[in-house]
Amino acid sequence: MSGLIGSTPAVINVGLASFAESIEAAGGDVTQVDWRPPAEGEATAGRALARLTADPRVEKANEVALARFLAARPVLAGVATARDVVPGLGDRVVLHAGPPVEWPAMAGPMKGAVVGAMLYEGWAADADEAERRAASGEVAFSPCHHHSAVGPMAGVISPSMPVWVVEDREHGGTAFSNLNEGLGRALRFGANGPDVIDRLRFMASTLAPALGAAVERLGGIELKPLIAQALHMGDECHNRNVAASSLLTRRLAPAMLHAGVAGEQAAAALEFIAGNDHFFLNVSMAACKAMLDAAHDVAGSSMVTVMSRNGTEFGIRLSGTGDRWFTAPAPVVEGLFFSGYSREDAAPDLGDSSISEAAGIGGFAMAAAPAIVQFVGGTPADAIAYTNEMFAVTLGVNPVFTVPSLGFASLPAGIDALRVVDTGVAPVINTGIAHREPGIGQVGAGVTRAPLACFAEAVRELERGLG
Amino acid sequence: MSGLIGSTPAVINVGLASFAESIEAAGGDVTQVDWRPPAEGEATAGRALARLTADPRVEKANEVALARFLAARPVLAGVATARDVVPGLGDRVVLHAGPPVEWPAMAGPMKGAVVGAMLYEGWAADADEAERRAASGEVAFSPCHHHSAVGPMAGVISPSMPVWVVEDREHGGTAFSNLNEGLGRALRFGANGPDVIDRLRFMASTLAPALGAAVERLGGIELKPLIAQALHMGDECHNRNVAASSLLTRRLAPAMLHAGVAGEQAAAALEFIAGNDHFFLNVSMAACKAMLDAAHDVAGSSMVTVMSRNGTEFGIRLSGTGDRWFTAPAPVVEGLFFSGYSREDAAPDLGDSSISEAAGIGGFAMAAAPAIVQFVGGTPADAIAYTNEMFAVTLGVNPVFTVPSLGFASLPAGIDALRVVDTGVAPVINTGIAHREPGIGQVGAGVTRAPLACFAEAVRELERGLG
Repeated sequence: MSGLIGSTPAVINVGLASFAESIEAAGGDVTQVDWRPPAEGEATAGRALARLTADPRVEKANEVALARFLAARPVLAGVATARDVVPGLGDRVVLHAGPPVEWPAMAGPMKGAVVGAMLYEGWAADADEAERRAASGEVAFSPCHHHSAVGPMAGVISPSMPVWVVEDREHGGTAFSNLNEGLGRALRFGANGPDVIDRLRFMASTLAPALGAAVERLGGIELKPLIAQALHMGDECHNRNVAASSLLTRRLAPAMLHAGVAGEQAAAALEFIAGNDHFFLNVSMAACKAMLDAAHDVAGSSMVTVMSRNGTEFGIRLSGTGDRWFTAPAPVVEGLFFSGYSREDAAPDLGDSSISEAAGIGGFAMAAAPAIVQFVGGTPADAIAYTNEMFAVTLGVNPVFTVPSLGFASLPAGIDALRVVDTGVAPVINTGIAHREPGIGQVGAGVTRAPLACFAEAVRELERGLG
Repeated sequence: MSGLIGSTPAVINVGLASFAESIEAAGGDVTQVDWRPPAEGEATAGRALARLTADPRVEKANEVALARFLAARPVLAGVATARDVVPGLGDRVVLHAGPPVEWPAMAGPMKGAVVGAMLYEGWAADADEAERRAASGEVAFSPCHHHSAVGPMAGVISPSMPVWVVEDREHGGTAFSNLNEGLGRALRFGANGPDVIDRLRFMASTLAPALGAAVERLGGIELKPLIAQALHMGDECHNRNVAASSLLTRRLAPAMLHAGVAGEQAAAALEFIAGNDHFFLNVSMAACKAMLDAAHDVAGSSMVTVMSRNGTEFGIRLSGTGDRWFTAPAPVVEGLFFSGYSREDAAPDLGDSSISEAAGIGGFAMAAAPAIVQFVGGTPADAIAYTNEMFAVTLGVNPVFTVPSLGFASLPAGIDALRVVDTGVAPVINTGIAHREPGIGQVGAGVTRAPLACFAEAVRELERGLG
């Protein structure tokens, strides 16, 4: 003891950095280890984590789930009217993004989008009537994810809207997404003025048939190679889709004309998609949904198959916990705001588009898209750091999705709820930011994180299920 | 002296590394300085270099030339038939790539392309007759660069071929290029079979009018923003043009239909360009030519305004030396060969497409296009190294052409012949490789260097001119 006091002690400090700082201030020699207790120190989740990590059934189940995810072969198969193809979409049903939410609890932009959908469907003559009817229970609300569907931001899909149809031709599943309206005032951001409704009508009457004819003429479009190519062209395929949108347009244009779509209609359709750098987003989201559905329902698997937000709550699902949602309050997004807007205008995190990150693109692929920092903030070095950080929480890599600038390294794939809870590293998500009030639209874009509480609760439930 | 021998001497070795190696082998402490004598040790070029470097007129002239280059605003203005717009393109004239060359000295692929052009023009009934007539002097040959034009590989342009028209709307110049035929068997690689001639007829009768109508409808397309965007999407715009080609197609498709091009014709045109990842190359080359022409003919300037190869000789022009060519034997390209071909099959370096590097893209922009190493060989680290190396030989940077992954750093711009001669760093060029025999086509792609001898001779001439 006297020897220890007589010499200068060498200290290793694990965890809380302030202890190390005070030793350093006193002239001590200290090495700081950046460590946090698993499960943020919460005991039941920590115990569940320990048991599941030691359980060979979990490891085996995750191998199966990841393999099914990687083997999925999403093909853009067509365009259809939602009521004709989306399972369980009855009359007077409106689908929305995220986990379940009823009218009173809906965020401003989602309410705005619901009102817009009701006007579009002719269920109300004006916004006041639509709100009254929505509040009265005349309309049923259901998450897109309960119908093999996804939609960005408000994610509102009503029966008469056109949807993309993506088939997993390896496993036989089918996923759906609505069509992207472009930036600015759009239904998905809660805008519902006459311009927005007119655009939805144009999309159903002119755009969708032209796209459908083109896709049919091509016999479908393989989406994994297209996404992989876009990742080589600076897209991360969530908030940056200019390469994928251009590649898609290039495929569709001649096919549309060969299919006999009239020149005027084709011109209008092609002009619409050529004017929207984000047009591919919804196609990509349906592809991600199809790939992740292939990995869903593997008993014992801690792989995350859904991450989504309804503007009020953030929710996830695990492969091994069936249809259960695990939710936490939706965070507010840090990012770059459009001129005239600030954090005060922002609605909390919203949309099914975080299916992209669950599938290993978007925020997980930022290293492939250094130019995206112009849209979501940060530096190209941050973009690489986000991708590298996500390897800590994933089950493996996706050899099909690679990053040329990193020597063609594969991207991380398959979020493991156990690893998230163990490390405290929250999955990163690139996203748009909607105005908190209905009817205004997008006000910015940025980077956010999935709340850790969802993952802790999911791990507890997975452990309860395995017994 | 005895003190020096008694202690261990510390040696700095400048130049030849073998001296350092022998000191190191003997246990000596040696620092190697990588240095080569300017002008490869050649005395007259070395003296010219020293005089010009000290001459304030040269520095001033280079400032003017670079500023004019950077200020140029190339706009894709239309598509026309060569004889109607290309200055000095008389009847029975065939333009070709590179510095002047007559029939007997032409490389195999260029001879093949000339024969193809004569068949296309109806100047001969078959290849034998075409060769006889070409050899007889009935046809006049002239470099594209003598007519404000550029063409990749053989660069053959005959009077009935369609050409892109690019206007420099800042300074008023106009540049031309032929239209890209796609990979494989193509006239520019010396192929001249019926398939090649039929494709040329389709391009003139169907493709060119459709493209021309679209460009006219758009009122022209600004090319610098398009190239800048493609550089953010993994193109270097010489051997990788998939982003730029997709962005261009996306612009042209709706405009073509709005302009009233019939559905069938538009379908054929769009299918053709959608099937060719290199379609933008010739547009980009004409843009580079227009930008560099703006910098040409500034008295005293050592800026390189042309780099080009005819398959036999490599030639350059400087801004300050007027129409003089400075030539050296064309090198053979190191690269990746298509299956079944090797270095023995390769024609020497060929084509006007090195106008790209003179304009600071292509090999100079490889850092922007890490995925290109799959096509030309090397690693993504090599790609960055090539770009960084080129700062040693350029007058400045182009603030419009930036690289997101390098923190949006500007690319090097304006090759300075003085710096090339001083450093011995030869400008790097990405290029396709043609088969040495006429009629076969492309056999690979790779990276090559401009021969230093051209630059030494250009510097001597510039010095003679300034007196």
